[in-house]
Amino acid sequence: MNDSATLWWDRAKDCLCYIEQTLLPGEYVIIECRSIDRLATAIRRLEVRGAPALGVAGAYGITLATRTFPHEDVDTFMAGVRQAAEQLRSTRPTAINLGWGINRVLAALATAHSVDEARAIALREADAIAREDTACCHAIGNNGAALLPGRCTVLTHCNAGALACSSWGTALGVIRSAVMAGKEVKVISCETRPLLQGARLTAWELARDGIDVTVITDSMAAHFMRAGAIDVVIVGADRITRDAVFNKIGTYMHAVCARHHGIPFYVAAPLSTFDPDNTERDVLIEERGREEVTVMGNRTYVPDGAKVKNPAFDATPMDLVTAIITEKGVLHQPIDTRSYLSFRTSH
Amino acid sequence: MNDSATLWWDRAKDCLCYIEQTLLPGEYVIIECRSIDRLATAIRRLEVRGAPALGVAGAYGITLATRTFPHEDVDTFMAGVRQAAEQLRSTRPTAINLGWGINRVLAALATAHSVDEARAIALREADAIAREDTACCHAIGNNGAALLPGRCTVLTHCNAGALACSSWGTALGVIRSAVMAGKEVKVISCETRPLLQGARLTAWELARDGIDVTVITDSMAAHFMRAGAIDVVIVGADRITRDAVFNKIGTYMHAVCARHHGIPFYVAAPLSTFDPDNTERDVLIEERGREEVTVMGNRTYVPDGAKVKNPAFDATPMDLVTAIITEKGVLHQPIDTRSYLSFRTSH
Repeated sequence: MNDSATLWWDRAKDCLCYIEQTLLPGEYVIIECRSIDRLATAIRRLEVRGAPALGVAGAYGITLATRTFPHEDVDTFMAGVRQAAEQLRSTRPTAINLGWGINRVLAALATAHSVDEARAIALREADAIAREDTACCHAIGNNGAALLPGRCTVLTHCNAGALACSSWGTALGVIRSAVMAGKEVKVISCETRPLLQGARLTAWELARDGIDVTVITDSMAAHFMRAGAIDVVIVGADRITRDAVFNKIGTYMHAVCARHHGIPFYVAAPLSTFDPDNTERDVLIEERGREEVTVMGNRTYVPDGAKVKNPAFDATPMDLVTAIITEKGVLHQPIDTRSYLSFRTSH
Repeated sequence: MNDSATLWWDRAKDCLCYIEQTLLPGEYVIIECRSIDRLATAIRRLEVRGAPALGVAGAYGITLATRTFPHEDVDTFMAGVRQAAEQLRSTRPTAINLGWGINRVLAALATAHSVDEARAIALREADAIAREDTACCHAIGNNGAALLPGRCTVLTHCNAGALACSSWGTALGVIRSAVMAGKEVKVISCETRPLLQGARLTAWELARDGIDVTVITDSMAAHFMRAGAIDVVIVGADRITRDAVFNKIGTYMHAVCARHHGIPFYVAAPLSTFDPDNTERDVLIEERGREEVTVMGNRTYVPDGAKVKNPAFDATPMDLVTAIITEKGVLHQPIDTRSYLSFRTSH
C-alpha cells in the first residue's frame, strides 16, 4: 500500500513539489513550484486539487510567499505575504480548506519579529499541517473501515484519495484502511465528468495499490445499485455546512440513488472541511469553463450553437447522508452542528 | 424546423443513404451504403443508431440484400436474404425495432414469386415503414406536446431525435411539436456518456432548429432538478417490456431522481418499441467495448490496471414512469400490458 506524499516541501530545493494531476494517468510528472503565481495557476488548472490537499497547498503557498518577497522590514514583508494570501484564496471559491490552510499559517506568522523568523515559522506550520493531514487521513481511514462489512463493493465519486490530500486519502483512506485490516473491498470508481478525476486519479491510485477497481460512467451508478452490485457509497467533501455537504458535481445524484436503494451513503472528511457557521445558501458554487465539458483530447463534442453549464460542485442535504466519518469519530444521524463544534473545540 | 430525413433510400443510386452519426457535430457526412456487410458495420459502430432508426435501417437492409444477391431462382435468393437478415439482426441485441423492421419486410417478401418482384416489394415495404415512422413521430409529438406546460424546461438524455428515427424524433418530436404549437420550451440535454449522443446529436439537432439547448454532464441532472430548473423529463426507449423501459444507460438514474423531486418522467416511443410478451428478465443488455469509456479524442483516460464496465442500456421499472407517449395515445399509470396489446391490434 503506497503511503508516499503527493504534495510536499523539498528542503534541498526550498520549494513546493507536487504530482501534476491533469496529466495522470498517461504521464507522471513532479512539478517544482517556486512562486505564488505558479501555484495560483496550478490550483486554477487543477494540477493540484482535492479539499485537504488545497489546505496543505494553501499553507505551503504562504511559505512560498515568505521566500518570494525581498528581505525588507517585517511590516512591508508581511503586507506582501497577506496580498499573496488573498491572491491564492481567490483561486477556488467553494473548498473551505484552502482558506483554512492559508489562515492557519498567517496566524502563526503574527508572532514573527523578523523576516527570517517568519520564513522559519511558515515552513514549520505548513509542515505541521501536512503531517496532521496524513495523520488525519489515517484516523478517518480507521474510523471508516470499522463501518465496512468484511466483504463489500464500495462506490466512490471523483478522487478523495492520496492525490486529494497530502497522502492516504479520505474516502480512499477508508478503503485503504479497510484493506489493511484484512477486509475484501472492491471499488467502483465513477469516472466523474467533466474532468474524469475518478477515471484518471482514483483508478490510478487504487490500481497502483493492487486494489480491485472498476471504472464506470457516472450515469451507470444507479443501474449497478439496482443490480445489487454496490454495498456502500463513500465520497469526500469540499465543504460541510450546517445543512449540506458540498462535493464534486454528481455527488447529490449518488446520494438520491443510494437512498432510493437503501444503500448507506458516507462522507469522509477532516474537520477542517467543516463550516458550521454557514448554511447551504451562504456558499458559492464555482462555475467553471465551457471547454471542460465540450473538449476531450483533440476533439470538440458540443456544437457551438448549444449552451453549456458547468457547476463544479453540488450540495447534498444532510438528511441524505448516513454518517460523516471524521478523524475524531463518526457523526451519525441526526447529524447536528453542535457535534461538529464540540469536535472542533477538542481539536 | 427541420423535417428532412436522416436515413433514406436514394432511388437514383438504388442504395441506402444516412447521416454518419459518429462524426457529428464536427463533420456532416452522408454515407451511401450498398451492402449488408457495410450496414452491419455501420450499426455496430453506431453510425446509425436509435431504436426507430434501426427499424427503418433493418427494413432498408433487407432491401439492400435483395439488390446484393445474384438473380437466381427465387428460393435460393430468399435463402440468401434470410441469411443476411440474421446477420443484421445480431448486430444489436437490445433494441427491438431492428428485428421488427427486418421481420416486416421478410413477411412482405413471402408473397414474391420472382426475384424482381421481391426487390420491388422490399423497397415498397421499407419505404412504407420509413413513411409510417415519420407519421408516427409527428403523432407522438402532438400527443406529447399536449402534456407540456406553455413554458417549461425539458431534460432529455441521449438522442431520441430525428437522428434516432428517420425524421422528427420521439422525445425531441414532442419538443418540436410543442414549439410548433407555440409553447416556450427550453431543453437541457445530458451529454450521455460514454458516446455523448446528447452532447453531439441532440444539441446539434436542436441548435440547428433554433431551440434553446444547454448541454450538461449526466451527473448534473439531479442538481438542476433540486434547483427547480427542470419541469419535465422526456426520454426515448429501445424496448418496452411488460414491466420495464429499456433505454440508454443513465435513463434509470434520471427516473429515480425525477421521482425524488416530484418531476414527471415521460417515455416517448412508437408501438414498434413495445415487447409486451417479455419481461425485464428476458432482455439481454448489450455490453459494449472498454474503449468507448476509456478513450476520447486522442487520449486514454483510464489506467490499464483498472477494469471497465460498459452496459449500453439500463431498465427503468414501470412504476417510475409517469406516462408513455405513443403514436396512438398516452398510456398513463397504471401502465399495463393490455393497453399496449389493444393499441397494437388497432395498428
